[in-house]
Amino acid sequence: QMPRGNLETIHPRALVLSAIKKLLNGLKYQEAFLVMKRHRINWNLFYDHDPKAFFNNIDHFVRELDSATSLNLFLADLKEEDTTQTLYSAAYSRSPEKTKTAGGSKVDAVCDAVRESLDRIDPNKFFLSVLTAHVKKNQPELEIALQRIQQLTQLTRPGTGNDPGPGSGCDCPTPDEALRYLIILVDVNQLFDVALGTYDFKLVLMVAEKSQKDPKEYLPFLNQLRSLETNYQRYTIDKHLRRYSKALRHISRCPGDERFVECMSLVAEHKLYSEALQLFDRGSERYEAIGIAYGDYLQSKNRYADAALVFTLCSQWERALEMHSRCGQWQQAFCMASRLNYTADQLAETARKLAVYLSGHRRHSEAASILVEYADDVEEAISVLITGCHWAESLRLMYKHKREDIIETHLKPALVERCSSTQASLENFLVTFDKHKKRLAVVRENKLCQEQEEGADFNDVDADLYSDTSSVGGSAMGSVTSFGSSSSAYSTSTTSSKTSGRSRKNRRKAEQKKRSLKEGSKHEDLALLDALIEIMKNVDQLKGDVGHLLPILVMFDFKEEAQQLQQSLQDALKSLEAGRAEIWIGNITQPTMGTAAGFGPQYTSNAIAASMTAPGPLGAPPSTPSPDDVALFVPPKLSKDDKWRLHMLEPR
Amino acid sequence: QMPRGNLETIHPRALVLSAIKKLLNGLKYQEAFLVMKRHRINWNLFYDHDPKAFFNNIDHFVRELDSATSLNLFLADLKEEDTTQTLYSAAYSRSPEKTKTAGGSKVDAVCDAVRESLDRIDPNKFFLSVLTAHVKKNQPELEIALQRIQQLTQLTRPGTGNDPGPGSGCDCPTPDEALRYLIILVDVNQLFDVALGTYDFKLVLMVAEKSQKDPKEYLPFLNQLRSLETNYQRYTIDKHLRRYSKALRHISRCPGDERFVECMSLVAEHKLYSEALQLFDRGSERYEAIGIAYGDYLQSKNRYADAALVFTLCSQWERALEMHSRCGQWQQAFCMASRLNYTADQLAETARKLAVYLSGHRRHSEAASILVEYADDVEEAISVLITGCHWAESLRLMYKHKREDIIETHLKPALVERCSSTQASLENFLVTFDKHKKRLAVVRENKLCQEQEEGADFNDVDADLYSDTSSVGGSAMGSVTSFGSSSSAYSTSTTSSKTSGRSRKNRRKAEQKKRSLKEGSKHEDLALLDALIEIMKNVDQLKGDVGHLLPILVMFDFKEEAQQLQQSLQDALKSLEAGRAEIWIGNITQPTMGTAAGFGPQYTSNAIAASMTAPGPLGAPPSTPSPDDVALFVPPKLSKDDKWRLHMLEPR
Repeated sequence: QMPRGNLETIHPRALVLSAIKKLLNGLKYQEAFLVMKRHRINWNLFYDHDPKAFFNNIDHFVRELDSATSLNLFLADLKEEDTTQTLYSAAYSRSPEKTKTAGGSKVDAVCDAVRESLDRIDPNKFFLSVLTAHVKKNQPELEIALQRIQQLTQLTRPGTGNDPGPGSGCDCPTPDEALRYLIILVDVNQLFDVALGTYDFKLVLMVAEKSQKDPKEYLPFLNQLRSLETNYQRYTIDKHLRRYSKALRHISRCPGDERFVECMSLVAEHKLYSEALQLFDRGSERYEAIGIAYGDYLQSKNRYADAALVFTLCSQWERALEMHSRCGQWQQAFCMASRLNYTADQLAETARKLAVYLSGHRRHSEAASILVEYADDVEEAISVLITGCHWAESLRLMYKHKREDIIETHLKPALVERCSSTQASLENFLVTFDKHKKRLAVVRENKLCQEQEEGADFNDVDADLYSDTSSVGGSAMGSVTSFGSSSSAYSTSTTSSKTSGRSRKNRRKAEQKKRSLKEGSKHEDLALLDALIEIMKNVDQLKGDVGHLLPILVMFDFKEEAQQLQQSLQDALKSLEAGRAEIWIGNITQPTMGTAAGFGPQYTSNAIAASMTAPGPLGAPPSTPSPDDVALFVPPKLSKDDKWRLHMLEPR
Repeated sequence: QMPRGNLETIHPRALVLSAIKKLLNGLKYQEAFLVMKRHRINWNLFYDHDPKAFFNNIDHFVRELDSATSLNLFLADLKEEDTTQTLYSAAYSRSPEKTKTAGGSKVDAVCDAVRESLDRIDPNKFFLSVLTAHVKKNQPELEIALQRIQQLTQLTRPGTGNDPGPGSGCDCPTPDEALRYLIILVDVNQLFDVALGTYDFKLVLMVAEKSQKDPKEYLPFLNQLRSLETNYQRYTIDKHLRRYSKALRHISRCPGDERFVECMSLVAEHKLYSEALQLFDRGSERYEAIGIAYGDYLQSKNRYADAALVFTLCSQWERALEMHSRCGQWQQAFCMASRLNYTADQLAETARKLAVYLSGHRRHSEAASILVEYADDVEEAISVLITGCHWAESLRLMYKHKREDIIETHLKPALVERCSSTQASLENFLVTFDKHKKRLAVVRENKLCQEQEEGADFNDVDADLYSDTSSVGGSAMGSVTSFGSSSSAYSTSTTSSKTSGRSRKNRRKAEQKKRSLKEGSKHEDLALLDALIEIMKNVDQLKGDVGHLLPILVMFDFKEEAQQLQQSLQDALKSLEAGRAEIWIGNITQPTMGTAAGFGPQYTSNAIAASMTAPGPLGAPPSTPSPDDVALFVPPKLSKDDKWRLHMLEPR
């Protein structure tokens, strides 16, 4: 607000406001207006003082001010801010929530209310205020404003046969005046574009005449437009105004190949494919052309499934088949093959290609079923199933197709190999688990020491951190990376996993970067917890695998191997369970054991807070883990499932 | 320890111990022994004083004491406890860990060490001490003790031609003396059983003669045993001694059907099936008999998969097939069918039965593939696939078998139905989510108030808890239960779920009991969090479902429905995401906002602690949630996957 200078000494604002408040409460808007004008009080107060009362007495407000000029002053000054909270907060000690407009914008609400009231009372007399109310909105309603001026033209034009409204002669501004007023409020070029957007050349000319534009420029432009066929004309205008969706709708209605070429290039340039498809009938030539372009575009963006759908919609079976194949949607691919009436050879070829893709994405059982059904290649199917550890299904095919010879040649060696590799990876998991567990204890110990000797020399802390266990930690790291790859071989299950091994590896890498397992790194404890949880998950997942393997091993007289494997997995689960108690329940509570008072179980949560707010290594400011890190403090659960165990292998 | 009476005034124990310590350090065991004997000091001190030194100088110790009687005193008094920690802790101020024996038992370690030393130095002279060392172990080695006495018999028996060992004449006790000594240490009946267990009747008689047993009783018993065939004799003895595994091994070697009947009843009575199987050759008649009994037993325990394996091992294909069918292992079931050379009709019948089972367990795609492959019933297969929402696979079969008519009759109605039911359940999820969210805010608010007015009247708190929102909470509860069942219909996915719907429902019920959603219940906030997490999981899982549904909807010209569905799911995910921030990150931090100092993110963990240790409703003692409840405070993650969305349905 402007400085009031000497006014303040004669009329202190506090008193002025108190007077205005009384007037507003008494709904004496006219008097209030005069006082506010004299003392330069912000007009927003009319509304902010009591929004409800303002809306309820809106007609009274208009009648009190009773002047387009006064109303324009009020409207032009509207702001979203609540002046009782900002400018005049001293006079109003209100809590912020009380006066907040629910949801919408204050300016829009006031403009609409005032305009409706004006239209009720006397749209002609207050014509300029009506325009102001339209234009002042957050999304200025310029088109409506122009149309109202145009209506005025029709009303006031002599010889139209319309009886001018009451008092239209004296109260109403001429269209000319109105337009000139509007141009003060809004940039004339913007108005010109809006007028053009109505496709109403009269309106355009009306605005253009008032503008600073050179008639030599805009007249040829308008005349050229006028000469065009309606749809093409509108398309040209829309394109000029960058309204591409509208442009598309108009150009799509233009007949002739030449126009359709323009349509296609518009679609391609502004990626309006899906809108374009809706404008043509499915099955028509043009729909097909758009569809193919859309499919090409989607393919270029590697969105094969989307591309396949679009090609299907425009009956491009061949290309749809290709796209479905590329993203492993084999059922849909064969739908297309059927529609294309593929020969047996073609089907077999398609099947082989898809089988390679599916096997590569660890979807062995699907690959096998395709090979049998479409390529009639039982042997290859069985081999794929054995690779994917789908033992039962591989046996079913062998018995069904009288290929029991494969049991000896391929199945048994694979079973034994799988058994020993599972054993090895179990061992690996346990060794790493143990190393991480021990290192975690050391790190926690160090953190505790550090907390206790907050003021100690940093170098000491430093030396503390790189303890004798560096060899342990180092080798632990080594083994993690070394069997990280081998463990990925154990993601096989009866479900078809959709994530490729590669993407999973990348995600893992990114995670490892964030929290490094390197000794003495800032969040080493979190990284260790993460790694420990990962191991527990992996071992837990082995249950399903082993559960399928054991009965087949026993069936083929590898009972001892099976027994050992069952024992190993049970032992592993037991020691993880014990480690879990140690890591997530025992150790965490120790730091607070001495000090906190209360019940047992809640130590955990206290301790979480304690360990999470503990200062990081090297006396850095306290580590501030993200809320998601809380997940690391939840004891991971091993599934209760023990259906994987064989009764006959249980120790007595 | 016994009271020492007047001794204490003349020889204060502190001084005595200090003297003994010096003697032990000087390895003067003989002198130490005398002092300890006089002052009634516990013999364990020999070892406890310095375990390492004791083991290192064990031979010296034996030579110093140099008397079976002294050694027996020492051995008989051995205890697991560490006397430097208990009796004589005043004289030894040691930390508990330092002296702990790694892993094993102290008594066993000392007994073994002493016995080895005795055997080295003079097994005859110290014969009774050797016996004591064997018997004193935690698992008394009675059999070995008896055998050593028996060896003595052979050594000392005149006319055996053995040259008695050095000094055997004077040093060694007679077998009679030795046995009498042993009976003092061990209950004679136990010794008798041990002797019997060696199957050595001489040994048995030797013990029996020394016992209080009546020869009229034991002689007939022994004579009867003697008359039996060796294996059957041993079986009878083992059974008498309740050593059933050994009994089984011996009876299994007895020829004749009569004996095998006994064998079978032993197996059945003591559930020795798996052991029994190992004793017979696979393929033999007896193996088969055992196998069938084992299979019956497993079947009676509802362990169908185990039963199937056992029946397979003993070539009972028919029954194996039945068992495999009962647990849905259809691949294995058809392996059996192949072995049984089933006709096409039999295969079809089996297929139909299995298909019903699999459909009932939401494994529709497997059911369908069986129906096609073995029952040649494409129509039924397609119907099953449509029920299971496997749209693509159902289409593949329609095109392959020229049954495109089904698209109109069944597929399209199912698609539309599925679309609207998914919409409905999305809506349900959101409504409930919102209700729970609001109620949670109220509960948290109440908890906070309660903390602040700890000393307030309970009735007030009570009234506070049952607030105006009871109607909201009530209806929320209602809708949970009402759509709990309908939501279970949405567990379909391409993976084959192995848990039946029923078991999942039971588990859920159990969980709900633990933490009730009832208003004002003790852990209502936890129950609400649980329910909210559940909803987020369910909605997240819909992605896969919807992702499969959308392209098929579009393909069959239900583009609008598809568009709405995609929009609904995206909106739902967005509002869950917003709610997640509110529930797990915003609100939790509020309670501590005012007081705690530090960085933003760590409030969460502080707040977890705060909210978990907050007193429960009705001023009960602070609620003590289990560590697993921490999981409820981890913001649940929605998967990042947005492959389910169709490009052509994206709003521009």
